[in-house]
Amino acid sequence: MEGVTELAAGADVLFLMLGAVMVLAMHGGFAFLEVGTVRHKNQVNALVKILSDWSVCTVVYMVVGYQVAYGVGFFAPAADLLGADKGLGLVKFFFLLAFAAAIPAIISGGIAERARFWPQVLAAGLLVATIYPLFEGVIWNGNLGFQGWLKGTFGAAFHDFAGSVVVHAVGGWLALAGVMVLGPRLGRYTATGGSHPFPPSNIPFLALGSWMLIVGWFGFNVMSAQSVQGISGLVAMNSLLAMVGGVLAALVAGKADPGFAHNGALAGLVAICAGSDLVHPFGALVIGAIGGALFVYMFHVTQERLRIDDVLGVWPLHGLAGAWGGVACGIFGAEALGGLGGVNLLSQIVGTLAGVALALVGGLVVYKAVDLTIGIRLSEEDEYRGADLAVHKIGANPEERHGP
Amino acid sequence: MEGVTELAAGADVLFLMLGAVMVLAMHGGFAFLEVGTVRHKNQVNALVKILSDWSVCTVVYMVVGYQVAYGVGFFAPAADLLGADKGLGLVKFFFLLAFAAAIPAIISGGIAERARFWPQVLAAGLLVATIYPLFEGVIWNGNLGFQGWLKGTFGAAFHDFAGSVVVHAVGGWLALAGVMVLGPRLGRYTATGGSHPFPPSNIPFLALGSWMLIVGWFGFNVMSAQSVQGISGLVAMNSLLAMVGGVLAALVAGKADPGFAHNGALAGLVAICAGSDLVHPFGALVIGAIGGALFVYMFHVTQERLRIDDVLGVWPLHGLAGAWGGVACGIFGAEALGGLGGVNLLSQIVGTLAGVALALVGGLVVYKAVDLTIGIRLSEEDEYRGADLAVHKIGANPEERHGP
Amino acid sequence: MEGVTELAAGADVLFLMLGAVMVLAMHGGFAFLEVGTVRHKNQVNALVKILSDWSVCTVVYMVVGYQVAYGVGFFAPAADLLGADKGLGLVKFFFLLAFAAAIPAIISGGIAERARFWPQVLAAGLLVATIYPLFEGVIWNGNLGFQGWLKGTFGAAFHDFAGSVVVHAVGGWLALAGVMVLGPRLGRYTATGGSHPFPPSNIPFLALGSWMLIVGWFGFNVMSAQSVQGISGLVAMNSLLAMVGGVLAALVAGKADPGFAHNGALAGLVAICAGSDLVHPFGALVIGAIGGALFVYMFHVTQERLRIDDVLGVWPLHGLAGAWGGVACGIFGAEALGGLGGVNLLSQIVGTLAGVALALVGGLVVYKAVDLTIGIRLSEEDEYRGADLAVHKIGANPEERHGP
Repeated sequence: MEGVTELAAGADVLFLMLGAVMVLAMHGGFAFLEVGTVRHKNQVNALVKILSDWSVCTVVYMVVGYQVAYGVGFFAPAADLLGADKGLGLVKFFFLLAFAAAIPAIISGGIAERARFWPQVLAAGLLVATIYPLFEGVIWNGNLGFQGWLKGTFGAAFHDFAGSVVVHAVGGWLALAGVMVLGPRLGRYTATGGSHPFPPSNIPFLALGSWMLIVGWFGFNVMSAQSVQGISGLVAMNSLLAMVGGVLAALVAGKADPGFAHNGALAGLVAICAGSDLVHPFGALVIGAIGGALFVYMFHVTQERLRIDDVLGVWPLHGLAGAWGGVACGIFGAEALGGLGGVNLLSQIVGTLAGVALALVGGLVVYKAVDLTIGIRLSEEDEYRGADLAVHKIGANPEERHGP
Repeated sequence: MEGVTELAAGADVLFLMLGAVMVLAMHGGFAFLEVGTVRHKNQVNALVKILSDWSVCTVVYMVVGYQVAYGVGFFAPAADLLGADKGLGLVKFFFLLAFAAAIPAIISGGIAERARFWPQVLAAGLLVATIYPLFEGVIWNGNLGFQGWLKGTFGAAFHDFAGSVVVHAVGGWLALAGVMVLGPRLGRYTATGGSHPFPPSNIPFLALGSWMLIVGWFGFNVMSAQSVQGISGLVAMNSLLAMVGGVLAALVAGKADPGFAHNGALAGLVAICAGSDLVHPFGALVIGAIGGALFVYMFHVTQERLRIDDVLGVWPLHGLAGAWGGVACGIFGAEALGGLGGVNLLSQIVGTLAGVALALVGGLVVYKAVDLTIGIRLSEEDEYRGADLAVHKIGANPEERHGP
Repeated sequence: MEGVTELAAGADVLFLMLGAVMVLAMHGGFAFLEVGTVRHKNQVNALVKILSDWSVCTVVYMVVGYQVAYGVGFFAPAADLLGADKGLGLVKFFFLLAFAAAIPAIISGGIAERARFWPQVLAAGLLVATIYPLFEGVIWNGNLGFQGWLKGTFGAAFHDFAGSVVVHAVGGWLALAGVMVLGPRLGRYTATGGSHPFPPSNIPFLALGSWMLIVGWFGFNVMSAQSVQGISGLVAMNSLLAMVGGVLAALVAGKADPGFAHNGALAGLVAICAGSDLVHPFGALVIGAIGGALFVYMFHVTQERLRIDDVLGVWPLHGLAGAWGGVACGIFGAEALGGLGGVNLLSQIVGTLAGVALALVGGLVVYKAVDLTIGIRLSEEDEYRGADLAVHKIGANPEERHGP
């Protein structure tokens, strides 16, 4: 039977490695979604931000965040890290890092076009060292007894299989805090109540980003099982149906607008993460459709009524669709609606609100602290010029300045 | 031994999930191949079409088409859908849906730039509910006794391992029907016999689409084994060689034209699907090369001699190279040519012709019906303006209209 | 236990197939990295080169190169090639071909914008038939007794787990030879000592290429284990950390320049290949950081001080960071630095120098021979016009010449 044990160990390492790489690829998707949505003068900035945030977060999460969430460090010799399970603990870190690094990637799209580069990286590092792993540890590792209390009180712990709340809602509400601290872009709103939306620069890049996210998302959700033997085809199926529900609802509500359609897919996927392992596929379709419609409707409300300049709409996309996903799992997970059961709606609501509150407060503290100490907003001149030339000294198409 | 059973079950779910996701990623490839080939004013439309067709087809195939092909439905509680095999049936659906949804994705490139949006989606849904699963069920599930009759008559059933005929030829001939019903784009041909080809808008996007399709295609072919224990390295090797044959032939025949080279890879891959599990790698090279050359030659014939305005050349690419693949499998599959044997050339010809005939007739019926009832062609004004502004109210680079 | 053997055999075929496909996808990355970096008038050429080189190399490596390296041919019937292990030998070839074909893909970026198309393809074929498999066989297959001599002399053979030297350094030094034979692009340097860098055409495409390479690289490194049971999570972790080190160092050294940041990730990955299976993750971070800094610094030296017109900087990126990786493995692999041990610094230095010397000499011979016989440099007129119109008769955005 030794062969089986060896094979099973290898298969689990492969499984988590594939998941980690698929979620890594999603970060390329975050980059292109932002490249396509921002103005041309900020495309380079979007690309460098995502790559830099990823890199800083890897080090920070490895040295601090992962310790906060799971109490695991990496200061032993390589032979000990490798252990007897072919380094399963290392790919597990890689997989969970790819989730953690999604936090600044989500935020990046909200605060785009007016944040200073290094202060923004610093804020990303602070969040991935503290707020995110704190909540992650509470929910996924059972730290601080919150889950035990929910279970004792309502009969079921807070269920968030792949992170509708832990990753997306937390990321979206952190972004809202950042957006509020930064304020709107120059010229986006006028003092007399006017609103001047800036059109996206490049729809194909926006769509490319969405495709990269969609494809990688199946690693995000399915590999959350963390072992081959724990895999569930239901997770894949539900992710598919929720994505489709999100597209269809956004297509109708958004009148075939390409930005809404491609973000609608993502809204559906955000909403299904939590309950993807236990709702019925038709439930997933409905959850995704509500996520997509919510995004389209609240995108308008955010930008026009609340006059919050959330550039990519990451608060409605991740913050609201994510919170909806946390709650929806408590509704559609019920056996009465064809689900596998074992969830409680009140636990879902309390857990979701806890994540939202922590993210909003923590985000305000971190962004305000960074702003008050070193300043997070670009100068007016740099913002007008665009972050590409101001920060990176090069535009997205530098040859064009030089003739053919 | 329970561990082994568990591991094997998990591995199969993983296997089909990876296959499904790789074919899902091909749909992004279909989108960018079309984005790069159409005129700039129809790029957004290409992107929204592929995503919408995928989404509508998911629902339609789940509720109708999959029942037609395999008699399997999804109306039981999630616990029953999950079953004892970790939801293998669900990822199998996902995988086969990704094939079914390739039908409208193939057609999309042929009818590009002049079809109305929702009627085109409706036609896609009708085809994936009826014509496609009908033939799929006959060939892959043995419905209606056609395969039994072939086996009794010629000694071997029609062999189409990964869908040269079931998916590609059927898709390509359906597209031909759609293209004929729609007629050519405004200005493409003149009444006095003139021909004005519209140059592609963006070769890098065309190439990106081709790369996404090439990479995903290995999931399309290899995962057609549908279980880890059924996997065959020969399928991967033959797919590689046929792709290479397609590139080399198209490169020479097409005089290093980038559109031909990147579509040549796809023509080779289309042609190898059917026999990828049983021809010799050198046979695959030849099959792919003939596929690539056929595409280049017939692309010219289609557009210039037959004056059929098949924008991406999907009839030569999928319809003809696919039919060639169905037949080629009966030639190169023979043991005398180094193949594994067990195929019959006459069975291959009859099966291929059946698919082609069903697709052409079915396509004419569906597209004609949609055209006569709600109308499938854009108004002249909308076509001239471009589907992006006419249908989606936004262009591919909306910022450009607003200055820097 | 038969089920276990079957499952293990299938899992290995899947493992290597996934690796091969991930490295295949890297070739799309090579293409877009070059598309984004060259001038607009040479974008099409970049795309066609990569696809053509891949295709020619597949045939050449199958018929000649793989025989040179491993003594394995493909002239037996398909049934024999498939064998009892589900065609493992075939996916192994596919995987190793994807490494071999990286040689011309690396070179392509160095010699960009002034090489003739077919002569360049010919040189690629010659290199993949001779120099590359010669060194590959010596190092990875133990041919010619070089590894045995090292082991006897220094106590350890030359260790290059995933090809820092075998693939990257060899490719980079071959490219240097090609670049020197070709000479700089017209107008790049003036006779009076002036230097006129040509700015890149498209940073988003450059970044897209980098992302495709980064993601695929995990297949390049992790699947170098060549079996599921041999997988190591340490390889994935170290690849991650080296990539991150490369980004961070390039970000600082390159002052947040997008080209440096995105190539810095690649420099880190190049440097970690050799020792990814035995250094400590913090060692990998340092190795990658030195690789990234080396790239930024030597890119300037190459282009401005040495006046070598290596367009994408592939000599510093692959040649120097690769050689550094070969040596670094002998330093950070030591148990004293937390590594797994079993390597010898002198063996690493000698092995690295052997690869570098063979590549430089072999590259000069091959490129000089091609240049003297059929000529490898574009005519001045063609170079000025751009390879796209001169060779491929079409530009990257052909519609633009025709109005809306």
